[in-house]
Amino acid sequence: MDLKRILLTIAYDGTRYSGWQKQKNPEVITVEGELTKALRQLFKNPELECIGASRTDAGVHALGQRAVIDVETTIPVEKIPLAIRSFLPTDIVVTKAEKVSGGFHPRFDCVKKTYEYRFWNAPVKNPKERLYSAYVQKPLDIDKMNEGAKAFLGTHDFAAFCAAGAQVSTTVRTISDCHVERQGESVRILVTGDGFLYNMVRIIAGTLMAVGMGKIPPEHVAGIIESKDRAKAGQTAEPQGLTLMEIFYDLP
Amino acid sequence: MDLKRILLTIAYDGTRYSGWQKQKNPEVITVEGELTKALRQLFKNPELECIGASRTDAGVHALGQRAVIDVETTIPVEKIPLAIRSFLPTDIVVTKAEKVSGGFHPRFDCVKKTYEYRFWNAPVKNPKERLYSAYVQKPLDIDKMNEGAKAFLGTHDFAAFCAAGAQVSTTVRTISDCHVERQGESVRILVTGDGFLYNMVRIIAGTLMAVGMGKIPPEHVAGIIESKDRAKAGQTAEPQGLTLMEIFYDLP
Repeated sequence: MDLKRILLTIAYDGTRYSGWQKQKNPEVITVEGELTKALRQLFKNPELECIGASRTDAGVHALGQRAVIDVETTIPVEKIPLAIRSFLPTDIVVTKAEKVSGGFHPRFDCVKKTYEYRFWNAPVKNPKERLYSAYVQKPLDIDKMNEGAKAFLGTHDFAAFCAAGAQVSTTVRTISDCHVERQGESVRILVTGDGFLYNMVRIIAGTLMAVGMGKIPPEHVAGIIESKDRAKAGQTAEPQGLTLMEIFYDLP
Repeated sequence: MDLKRILLTIAYDGTRYSGWQKQKNPEVITVEGELTKALRQLFKNPELECIGASRTDAGVHALGQRAVIDVETTIPVEKIPLAIRSFLPTDIVVTKAEKVSGGFHPRFDCVKKTYEYRFWNAPVKNPKERLYSAYVQKPLDIDKMNEGAKAFLGTHDFAAFCAAGAQVSTTVRTISDCHVERQGESVRILVTGDGFLYNMVRIIAGTLMAVGMGKIPPEHVAGIIESKDRAKAGQTAEPQGLTLMEIFYDLP
């Protein structure tokens, strides 16, 4: 049997996890940790490791997380999502498996990522939304939010939208889409870019929330970006509103 | 102080509850039990009881459950939702409180109720929907479901849509609305009636699911109702897809 590199697409409800990344303390439950356990059982390989594409934080969800594994197996690649199901908790689902070349890397080969940030915007809280949305009582002005969202488009130094203390070689990123939609009481921000700094989407969400509430004029957003000053941007919106929707690769 | 009868509107995520109704075994956690505890703390009355409008089952949710309490209090009625918040778990929210007449009864005075039943209809499961939708992989034909749904409208003997063993004086009910909507991969049935038999909405949902999957022709639904035979209707759809949306009263 040959060693195959397999790219997995993973969906999870991040509510009960301390984020994606496996941790040394076995009492800390992570998505990567649970997935690795399931993969080891399925492929009967206690050494198997996976390489994830994105380190989502505690409480953050994903519908399109990606990870690769190298395995020797007789299980047909397309059957892996079904085969692994019984080894996984119900809040983690492998939705797709595909063979990729041995040189493929889920993080370095990433071209774009799309995140969704969701608010529940209503006079009263909705307990069914509490794990998947940030609650905002004051009516959000979607037109203003979309006006402010335009300032994020293009290539900018996003130092103002990066959690303090994050160590990165550059804070320049390119955002190709950022817009806001309302469906009834649910308001969602969709943002696509070539990469995101630590907490960047949640700070964008907190800033657009402030715009929607009338606390920051939409025409000030460009200046906040230019300032490179974290203190000028909005708060870091709560983790449970965030979902990693899709990771794009130039696969052949 | 006078004794006031207060009507509460309650929203909850039913996931971790053994239904609405308080049970004798204190280890069984119910929505009514948790709400009663919170009300007793808020009003400093260890004897206080509430009367609920609808006994939702384990795993079933509500956005518009109702209950009444009789209290002597200096707390302004409209402040009760805010005042009780710190005594309630985050999955139960009192969304409204209003004074009603002393003769008002939340069950007997109910004129109509609206339920929603939700399916997640996609090639793969969505872990964020697992607690709030039943999963259906096969594409549901919404037009056929709506055609079948029409058969429920009006006054019928719904004996075929009642869980076996339920003891009721009559199985005749009047349905004023029953229709199906799709929003992307989310399919929801909305049904309004003057009353519902035990499991009636979940059996309607299971039947319309079978219609949407092509297992029951939509023109057969009227005959299933006429048969009064539980075995002819579809399965009882899973509890987590069901939400009690609204209870209507003729309040002055």
